[in-house]
Amino acid sequence: MGEAKMQAVQAVIVPVEAFINEAERLKPELFKQQVLPERLAEVVRDEEAIHGWAARAITGTESLPEQDFGTGDSFILDFGDHRVGYVSFCVRPVGSPPDAPLKLKLTLGEMPVEMAEPFAEYEGWISSSWLQEETLFVDVLPRRIELPRRYSFRYLKIEVLATSAKYRVAFEDIICTTVTSADASAVQPLGHSDETLKEIDRVSIRTLEDCMQDVFEDGPKRDRRLWLGDLRLEALANYETFRNMELVKRCLYLFAGVPDEQGRVSANLFIEPAIIADDTYLFDYSLFFTTTLFDYYMASGDEDTLKELWPTARKQVELALEQLDDQGLVQDQETWWSFIDWHPQLNKQASSHAILIYTLKKAIQLAEQVGCDSSSAFSTELTKTTQAAVDSLWDADAGFFVSGAGRQISWASQIWCALAGVLPEEQNKQLMLHLLSSRPDIGLTTPYMHHHLVEALLVTGCREEAAAHLKSYWGGMLADGADTFWELYDPADKNFSPYGSYLINSYCHAWSCTPAYLIRHYGL
Amino acid sequence: MGEAKMQAVQAVIVPVEAFINEAERLKPELFKQQVLPERLAEVVRDEEAIHGWAARAITGTESLPEQDFGTGDSFILDFGDHRVGYVSFCVRPVGSPPDAPLKLKLTLGEMPVEMAEPFAEYEGWISSSWLQEETLFVDVLPRRIELPRRYSFRYLKIEVLATSAKYRVAFEDIICTTVTSADASAVQPLGHSDETLKEIDRVSIRTLEDCMQDVFEDGPKRDRRLWLGDLRLEALANYETFRNMELVKRCLYLFAGVPDEQGRVSANLFIEPAIIADDTYLFDYSLFFTTTLFDYYMASGDEDTLKELWPTARKQVELALEQLDDQGLVQDQETWWSFIDWHPQLNKQASSHAILIYTLKKAIQLAEQVGCDSSSAFSTELTKTTQAAVDSLWDADAGFFVSGAGRQISWASQIWCALAGVLPEEQNKQLMLHLLSSRPDIGLTTPYMHHHLVEALLVTGCREEAAAHLKSYWGGMLADGADTFWELYDPADKNFSPYGSYLINSYCHAWSCTPAYLIRHYGL
Repeated sequence: MGEAKMQAVQAVIVPVEAFINEAERLKPELFKQQVLPERLAEVVRDEEAIHGWAARAITGTESLPEQDFGTGDSFILDFGDHRVGYVSFCVRPVGSPPDAPLKLKLTLGEMPVEMAEPFAEYEGWISSSWLQEETLFVDVLPRRIELPRRYSFRYLKIEVLATSAKYRVAFEDIICTTVTSADASAVQPLGHSDETLKEIDRVSIRTLEDCMQDVFEDGPKRDRRLWLGDLRLEALANYETFRNMELVKRCLYLFAGVPDEQGRVSANLFIEPAIIADDTYLFDYSLFFTTTLFDYYMASGDEDTLKELWPTARKQVELALEQLDDQGLVQDQETWWSFIDWHPQLNKQASSHAILIYTLKKAIQLAEQVGCDSSSAFSTELTKTTQAAVDSLWDADAGFFVSGAGRQISWASQIWCALAGVLPEEQNKQLMLHLLSSRPDIGLTTPYMHHHLVEALLVTGCREEAAAHLKSYWGGMLADGADTFWELYDPADKNFSPYGSYLINSYCHAWSCTPAYLIRHYGL
Repeated sequence: MGEAKMQAVQAVIVPVEAFINEAERLKPELFKQQVLPERLAEVVRDEEAIHGWAARAITGTESLPEQDFGTGDSFILDFGDHRVGYVSFCVRPVGSPPDAPLKLKLTLGEMPVEMAEPFAEYEGWISSSWLQEETLFVDVLPRRIELPRRYSFRYLKIEVLATSAKYRVAFEDIICTTVTSADASAVQPLGHSDETLKEIDRVSIRTLEDCMQDVFEDGPKRDRRLWLGDLRLEALANYETFRNMELVKRCLYLFAGVPDEQGRVSANLFIEPAIIADDTYLFDYSLFFTTTLFDYYMASGDEDTLKELWPTARKQVELALEQLDDQGLVQDQETWWSFIDWHPQLNKQASSHAILIYTLKKAIQLAEQVGCDSSSAFSTELTKTTQAAVDSLWDADAGFFVSGAGRQISWASQIWCALAGVLPEEQNKQLMLHLLSSRPDIGLTTPYMHHHLVEALLVTGCREEAAAHLKSYWGGMLADGADTFWELYDPADKNFSPYGSYLINSYCHAWSCTPAYLIRHYGL
């Protein structure tokens, strides 16, 4: 997610030291690996390629140390796949002793377009500081440069901005030390006859792997942060692949460790310099604390964590219930109050209401598991909110759920009402088939929402449609050259960005890693 | 000096380990001092000011930590005087937790113009990498930033290139830790009734202080390097002020430690990553090894060093004598073979020949001191070269020495012939008075050459003219706002740069620090 278009709430945080300490104890050791660039590449105009730019191999890197570069020269290295890690290299002088500092510019990109279009032209509304570049002065040569920042990239462009008239430079031992908290050896091979699904599964796992760091990050390029909406989906994919239970547990403890004075968990956390709850609160994301704890318990059977974190999980549901109006319906709001999807026209009332129902069902099971008497109250609320949805949001004539005062019909509303099981089983399936056939205008913009579409199709028994959509959508990204799955992908508008420029989009994004879950969990 | 317009000679260096080790042993501990910025400043257009830009005080820095800055904001700090050292500061977020990296640009300048004119527009012929700027990304806030590079500056501009829509930043504890190997407490106060001379003396000493680092540098902004021509003058000023004998000794051992296979010393040395002789050899600079050893022995009485380095000193003279033609005259060359001054039209034959005579006189004294039999051979050569100068370079009709095939009459030729004492005493004085009255077109461009003019006036007995010129020239820099004396200063063309842009000029330059020597040594 991006950083603005969000409310900045004045919240008073009440830290729970025991939870923060437990999260700290669970901090993972990172796996490290040294990766070399595979080839020298060029990025050329190609109207068929995504963003209009294609990377073409020039040659291997064997002869690079013998080449020398002067002011104005540059080259692009292709590391062969998406990488998250630290870059280091040696630079040595060629010619006379260096009589002036060396000035270098490094540009790192996940996509060819990042090598081709100048970052200086970026005019999007989120910070240009996400664009990965460095300008370096090297006073003494030769030198090994160890860049202190972590990058997310496949391509590295090195530009020599200035040597002097008397010397040039050569580069060698260019290395990326990758980092992840995912243990690749834990993943079971997917024995599947469908090569496309196998490839989608592989790239999903690579995506998740590169997002798994100190915490489950949303994207290693941007925002490099722990968001609840991403955590929920990463955790689901993780249970089917790396099975790093401790990292999920750590993230749950982090969220539970910095509630506000009402007990509400933030939509996202900053981990450094110390754990800080962002002043962004989202209706859906707070509820996903509860569903993520549910999923974690189902995957791990970890009773102790469930018991310890249950009060936080219950609180999110109670706070959401306070948002109900007289009819038992989640009240719509003018602000950026619930995420659902990156869609400027989307009304979020019906989806948010459905997410409350979806969560209530899981909360009731958890309450029963821990022996909490809130289960009966929650059951009453489930009946009431489900009835309210049918009474106030269901438009029998249209055959769709509507949302907000404008009675908007969107894909998101149908998908979430299907996932929540607002309607009886057969009607639920008809709803999804009706959605696919009539295709309302207010569509889906993110892989996050496409995940929910596929899962809604699966839980309503539309397996073929689910598989077809999964293969078409994530397979489309593959055909467009994805090494890891992207934050944004609209097959009808491949330049789409909710931030004002595709340069700032994240091309390895947690919420896009779910095919591994969908394929493996549902046996697609 | 600059880095190009110099030959890159294929020389084989024959290191003398004992000399290099002795130089290493003499490596100075640096004095460090923490200096705070004195005020916030603005730089404004002012046609009366040097380069057309003046720095004006806005306010003190007390309230700076309370101010906050967002994307596009900037401010300029004035550190009150020229500083050489390391910059550090704290930056902390204001507003929501920082949800994107901070991108900062720092620009450091010795002069107001460096704060005002964009470095990107620099198009001079020496490397733009000398322009002092940094672009930084800060991923975690708050943070103390300790910039690893050393800067030479009075002004520091901090530009916030990007925060995000949700946070701003504040700056505090901005510090420069200055470094020098000069011990200010060793300097004797100058009791002088002339306030201008006192101020010139003070600024000369500041200039020298900021150039005294691991070695005598030519300029702490550029080239930050040990040049023989600068060393010679710095050493002279040092004997009258800081009296750091060990630093001169170290520099002599460094030059003597890396001769080429002929035994020739380089015009300049690189000290890091290890001692390296630059592949630039200059006729005059090599001879200045011998004169610098002479000056060092006169100031220190250090017999051991004299004995150890005498063979190197003798060798420079012997190699220069090999350049004599049949008439006993130093042969002119097409290449950039001798420095003398930054003047594109200057013919360097007469000056170089005079420098050989000047050096022979000192070499003879050193040879006698160490009991070397070369003294008689050198005396023969002195007679021969002096006669050759009178026979071939002296134009009795013009009353000037001429230089090169074009028989050029320049200031430099007269000054060096006067310093060398080619003519008898009274004629020598007349030569200088004639020079001042007739003012040939080929003039002086550097404080380095102006130093030699003043000293030539002093040694020929023109004390009043010497004092007047010193006060007019260095006093002119003071009137134009010099905190330390500049590498280049042409009162008739204050934008003069031999490098194509005054942005790249050094404004604290070793060869401009000599007034302290001229005033104190000659009792001006």
